[in-house]
Amino acid sequence: MTPPGGEAALAERLLGGDRRALARAITLVENDDPLGWAIVREVYPRTGRAAIIGLTGPPGAGKSTLVAELTKLDRARGRSVAVLSVDPSSPFSRGALLGDRIRLSDHFLDPGVFIRSMASRGALGGLSETALQVALLMDASGRDTVLVETVGVGQAEVDIIDHADTVVLVLMPGSGDSIQALKAGVMEIPDVIVVNKADHPLADTMVREIRSVLALAPRSGWQVPVLRTSATSGEGVAELLATLDAHRERLELEGALEERRRRHLRREVLALALQRLRRDLEAALAADPELDRLLERVVARELDPRTAAAGILESVQPRSVDAGSDRGA
Amino acid sequence: MTPPGGEAALAERLLGGDRRALARAITLVENDDPLGWAIVREVYPRTGRAAIIGLTGPPGAGKSTLVAELTKLDRARGRSVAVLSVDPSSPFSRGALLGDRIRLSDHFLDPGVFIRSMASRGALGGLSETALQVALLMDASGRDTVLVETVGVGQAEVDIIDHADTVVLVLMPGSGDSIQALKAGVMEIPDVIVVNKADHPLADTMVREIRSVLALAPRSGWQVPVLRTSATSGEGVAELLATLDAHRERLELEGALEERRRRHLRREVLALALQRLRRDLEAALAADPELDRLLERVVARELDPRTAAAGILESVQPRSVDAGSDRGA
Repeated sequence: MTPPGGEAALAERLLGGDRRALARAITLVENDDPLGWAIVREVYPRTGRAAIIGLTGPPGAGKSTLVAELTKLDRARGRSVAVLSVDPSSPFSRGALLGDRIRLSDHFLDPGVFIRSMASRGALGGLSETALQVALLMDASGRDTVLVETVGVGQAEVDIIDHADTVVLVLMPGSGDSIQALKAGVMEIPDVIVVNKADHPLADTMVREIRSVLALAPRSGWQVPVLRTSATSGEGVAELLATLDAHRERLELEGALEERRRRHLRREVLALALQRLRRDLEAALAADPELDRLLERVVARELDPRTAAAGILESVQPRSVDAGSDRGA
Repeated sequence: MTPPGGEAALAERLLGGDRRALARAITLVENDDPLGWAIVREVYPRTGRAAIIGLTGPPGAGKSTLVAELTKLDRARGRSVAVLSVDPSSPFSRGALLGDRIRLSDHFLDPGVFIRSMASRGALGGLSETALQVALLMDASGRDTVLVETVGVGQAEVDIIDHADTVVLVLMPGSGDSIQALKAGVMEIPDVIVVNKADHPLADTMVREIRSVLALAPRSGWQVPVLRTSATSGEGVAELLATLDAHRERLELEGALEERRRRHLRREVLALALQRLRRDLEAALAADPELDRLLERVVARELDPRTAAAGILESVQPRSVDAGSDRGA
């Protein structure tokens, strides 16, 4: 589709803010096309300027509506916005999510807003790595704000959100499990917590519960604000935007932004390397019937899983196994 | 500690049901001691007999209390039990979990019950793989039932539970996020759902909500039962045990148990191979200051993350990178 050398022209247009070039580059990255990765390589030195804001929280908390409202206010003050909605859920939920997307459609005609959805592409596990590369492309295209939105329910590592400068956890009245997960330390404390659907009678209780959980883990420095919003009416969203600005200012003043990004980038490099290893391994398994026989011996309880794993690595990458530590057993 | 060749004797004692041998073998596996893995290799042909039951759910739902009650009833009918409690949470939660463990202490003096807790051992990511190996050791030691308990909040892949023949999701009134996660398809539908703390006024509402979510994803074959328990009073636990028996019987009758285990074991072999690759990679990164310089160039926005990842793989495992697909870019 793109001619050889076309990535330089595409990268140039992307850097100039061309929406179609951005859309095209994202598709290439999503399709794992070498041209896509070449474009990321090309534009990477021009990244790092956007404010990357991650929104996570349980399904149904109203993240998409909140993103739409934040986008509206950010646009009103003249900033350009890109939105990346990542949906790792099953096909079974499509209907519900479509409703969320419709809320973003107010912005479809605004050239200052770029919206993209990504769904899980199966078991390769590359979703979060691809999402991070897409965020880099959005950043390089000159967007002032990049909003990354994904579902997360109490997991310590919501990898997709890991790249954000500011992480917002969006809860709603009834989010008991998330509160428990925060309390138990299963979920990391975010930078900002929002209780959406604030007109619900249990919203006050929820805010109190969150504050008492936060009090258990006192932090020096940034104190995690707990805000109330009603995304459908827009109530509280201006305050949220001001809080996001304040968090960013704080990060920049303290030099913490650079430190945070350093940590994120190192983690991302490692994740990308592992993703590559995983793919190579899966490709080798698919190509070699001998390896399938090895797996069948595990099923027959003749060969234990770990020995089979070592056997597979040995036939795929002899060096890796020689470096292993349990050869002496 | 263990003399050379000692693993054969230890394995023999473990297979004979010796509790201390089992405890020792688990410690070896946890410490990643080659002797531990040699023991798993030795006893693996004798695994596959135990009923492996996984319990997952948000923190605070009462999983540990439920496990203690299930253990009591299973013991009362003469079956031997092993319990593995896996806790991937942060140190910050220790207090709460200690309370849970105390509920299991009724069983500490019963030789028919073997209890083991495992906490996350940092970033190596080996927790779930180690847990699966420990479950194999418990199985080989002749335990009739192996109960594996871990925290899970709405994540599609709670790896630790993946090895179980029967997966029980334990919720409580207020588990709104888990319901949303089930509904959105972010969390897999388990085999059995329990609403614990059934004396709570909102328990009925919760049961109704779960049933309506299950109705959205009709299954042929096994219909997921929604049970009510009160683990502290023991109410409903006998029915849960009967349901677990029924599920197992169903799996065995249909030949589905073998199919399920085949799938689990294949996945486990792959996970073990990846764990090994990850460790090799991390060891290489720690040992080579050159690689650190590569990471610093990413932070300086001179080199993009994916190119850096490829560079790291190239210096660690040249063959793996040669097999890569994006060399032509």
